[in-house]
Amino acid sequence: MIQTMQQISTIAEMRVHIKEARRLGKTIGIVPTMGFLHQGHLSLVKAAREKCDLVVMSIFVNPLQFGPNEDFERYPRDIEHDRQMAQSAGVDLLFTPEVSEMYPKPILTNISVSNVTEQLCGKSRPGHFDGVATVVTKLFQIVQPDYAFFGQKDAQQVAVVTQMTYDLSMPVQIVPCPIVREEDGLAMSSRNVYLTPEQRKEALVLSQSLKQAKSWLGEGVALSEIRGRIIDMIAAMPLASIDYVELLRYPDLTPIEQRTPGESIIIALAVRFGHTRLIDNLITNI
Amino acid sequence: MIQTMQQISTIAEMRVHIKEARRLGKTIGIVPTMGFLHQGHLSLVKAAREKCDLVVMSIFVNPLQFGPNEDFERYPRDIEHDRQMAQSAGVDLLFTPEVSEMYPKPILTNISVSNVTEQLCGKSRPGHFDGVATVVTKLFQIVQPDYAFFGQKDAQQVAVVTQMTYDLSMPVQIVPCPIVREEDGLAMSSRNVYLTPEQRKEALVLSQSLKQAKSWLGEGVALSEIRGRIIDMIAAMPLASIDYVELLRYPDLTPIEQRTPGESIIIALAVRFGHTRLIDNLITNI
Repeated sequence: MIQTMQQISTIAEMRVHIKEARRLGKTIGIVPTMGFLHQGHLSLVKAAREKCDLVVMSIFVNPLQFGPNEDFERYPRDIEHDRQMAQSAGVDLLFTPEVSEMYPKPILTNISVSNVTEQLCGKSRPGHFDGVATVVTKLFQIVQPDYAFFGQKDAQQVAVVTQMTYDLSMPVQIVPCPIVREEDGLAMSSRNVYLTPEQRKEALVLSQSLKQAKSWLGEGVALSEIRGRIIDMIAAMPLASIDYVELLRYPDLTPIEQRTPGESIIIALAVRFGHTRLIDNLITNI
Repeated sequence: MIQTMQQISTIAEMRVHIKEARRLGKTIGIVPTMGFLHQGHLSLVKAAREKCDLVVMSIFVNPLQFGPNEDFERYPRDIEHDRQMAQSAGVDLLFTPEVSEMYPKPILTNISVSNVTEQLCGKSRPGHFDGVATVVTKLFQIVQPDYAFFGQKDAQQVAVVTQMTYDLSMPVQIVPCPIVREEDGLAMSSRNVYLTPEQRKEALVLSQSLKQAKSWLGEGVALSEIRGRIIDMIAAMPLASIDYVELLRYPDLTPIEQRTPGESIIIALAVRFGHTRLIDNLITNI
């Protein structure tokens, strides 16, 4: 199959393509990303390719979702490499707007989602999910997708976007896709590139502690005890600094005290190695 | 021309109609209302009829945009009469969802627009424009209109919705339509029905003071002096209680101190008669 991917940098040009696709009755899928693509992103494209006639990937490092002391400026970028990967994976339209195209004037409209943003990254990154909800809505208005594909690594992001599309009756189905891991278990992330070799080695504690937690759940260990053991495992790493370790009801992300058979829970971690903040999670039944 | 209007009360059924209209390449217009229709609403339908193949009117008294001490419960409703008026005016689809259809669970998503909401009704009705922005977005997601028609009587609402669609790149054009007045000058409003005969008579001071203000502007009277004179005119009415009288730059609704030739201004009034709050405005060049 010969594919020619088109790169588009303006909203106006994207609208022309979308209008034509709509006229032809094509189903449209979007894979929203911040670029510096890895196999996790490509698994989203694969899922989109299977479900949709037209696959749009956006690459946009969205300033709204970064806090003042976060890594917006130094977030890794490599558009040449991204373009090759997107093309190989089967993206039809690669949307790469500049910040000045997305926000030509300071944006005055803000979208916020309550409840599901109270814990986890919503707590430790104030304003982050407002920025996510706002840019995702804007991308949805531009691309008008039938399906949108998000990685479960950002489980809270999936919860926020799902809640928002439900509340606002957006004509799009959110498709969460499984976490993709390196061979040794580290969850794939564009931010992994920041890690020194020593940090990279210690960072394995995230996926390893989640794996252990799954066993402990099977053995009937209490939730609070599991949380304590994960904290101990991570704290044993000299370069690691815990942001949070939480066990919450899933998908509503509310605190869970007691084990109730059949309920879904998420074990979610955020850990800093130097300036680099990594997240990982496990969703399972108890 | 024989028209058969269809009344639709569920989002799912509306989607079926919209999908079909889209398939046929029809342009879609929406006239969002809270019902209890008058000639002002019908002028919006007329504008929509001229521009669009499919005209959707929504009738939904949106609880989100009412404050705790406002008139949500007693807001006037007469769906039978509305249906006849909408049909005669040429509405194709009349969308009349219950609150339980629009908000089956408490809505967790909120949309707010800053700056343009700081003055006027945004100041005196906290949360009002969040409710407007949120429900309008939801209606836009359901109806997917190319054009949306709003009355200029709610000039700040027009400003909020215009700003929001711009910020979020919504694929819809906002069409503001002129204020429609009773023969004696009172701006048409569903809330006029609340007025006692005495209040109704005094309420003419709103349109009359705006008319006077236009003359004063022509005569070169200073803006602050004009504001004072309007306040004096309204204060002379025993049953009237002023909520605000403001002269602002238009459409950004920022304070204006000096007259600058060529600038647009809005003179906006909100006045209470008993429990009834009326608004009116004049937009003009200075």
